[in-house]
Amino acid sequence: MSGNTINADEHKRKMQEQQRQVRAKIADAKTRRGVIIYLYGNGKGKSSSAFGTLARSVGHGKKGAVVQFIKGKWKTGEQAIFRQLGVKHLVMGTGFTWDTQDREKDIAAAGAVWNKAAPLFKDPAYDIIILDEITYMFKYGYLSAAEVSEVLLARPEKQNVIVTGRDPIPELLEIADTISEVKEIRHAFHHGVKAQKGIEF
Amino acid sequence: MSGNTINADEHKRKMQEQQRQVRAKIADAKTRRGVIIYLYGNGKGKSSSAFGTLARSVGHGKKGAVVQFIKGKWKTGEQAIFRQLGVKHLVMGTGFTWDTQDREKDIAAAGAVWNKAAPLFKDPAYDIIILDEITYMFKYGYLSAAEVSEVLLARPEKQNVIVTGRDPIPELLEIADTISEVKEIRHAFHHGVKAQKGIEF
Repeated sequence: MSGNTINADEHKRKMQEQQRQVRAKIADAKTRRGVIIYLYGNGKGKSSSAFGTLARSVGHGKKGAVVQFIKGKWKTGEQAIFRQLGVKHLVMGTGFTWDTQDREKDIAAAGAVWNKAAPLFKDPAYDIIILDEITYMFKYGYLSAAEVSEVLLARPEKQNVIVTGRDPIPELLEIADTISEVKEIRHAFHHGVKAQKGIEF
Repeated sequence: MSGNTINADEHKRKMQEQQRQVRAKIADAKTRRGVIIYLYGNGKGKSSSAFGTLARSVGHGKKGAVVQFIKGKWKTGEQAIFRQLGVKHLVMGTGFTWDTQDREKDIAAAGAVWNKAAPLFKDPAYDIIILDEITYMFKYGYLSAAEVSEVLLARPEKQNVIVTGRDPIPELLEIADTISEVKEIRHAFHHGVKAQKGIEF
């Protein structure tokens, strides 16, 4: 199980150099402030990632909130966990836009949930807030990306925000501190595997 | 906040078409079985994604396990949450390889945690198992990707596995049902922002 292709001394030297680089970067990173993390792309794992970070924060005793766009009507495993962990949960009540097929109703629902979410970004009690799948709102013109970005930038200094959604929105790319693109390389769904409880929802 | 650039009828027609496509795909997806999800790449969010899916599964009453390579010595917010949620947790006790700088010790530690993990892939009681940051083990030759892949393929039919790590490992790309690449577009760490409790660890 080992494979002695790498010489032990060479390995040690390389690891020492890597350790030095990592330590130098840690020493350079001195600013203590909340960050905006933006996860976009067509791959699976963006919302899960946000929820995993939330769970980790709550594990450290932090206070969190989740604002879910689009997936509002789904009865998800997340909801059970959010309740159990004392996380505030706001949802847009109308489900997928291709289920409602009513633009005016979607716009009203998006505005309503955003109006409830906005005050959280003025409340320093919240350490971490997730805006899940909000990029659809910008793409369809239901919410203004400029207006939301302005609210995020004016938030309390230590507050962290995670924004997820399929699309790279210019206003979010501009203001985010950490950005990952999640690209679909393969998806079981396209190969006839049924969506499962706990994995997909 | 609305922006009436899209005609309401046009919108409805497009959404109906999208709904039809989604429904057709759901109807086609008939196989009920566990999947292997593989998240690789240099971007932030891979482990968080795995833990988020785990939290969701546990929220549905599923039984989970986490096997952590590399990050063993870190005292993480995840650990607190895993305990609280009754998730089995195995760790490789030696921390980052650039901290140990001892190849033989790393190989022994990797083998030890894998020997404890392997029986989980024969136990149908586990609905979801995460192999977190295991790709480093393959990259450095501490574990054999072929051997691990064989064990994963022989697992109970309904069991789900999530594998995370920086590198695209050919053996894993071959066997995974769902694959996402998480690409770093920007990282706050490189801009002098200190790693924070709950966000980075």
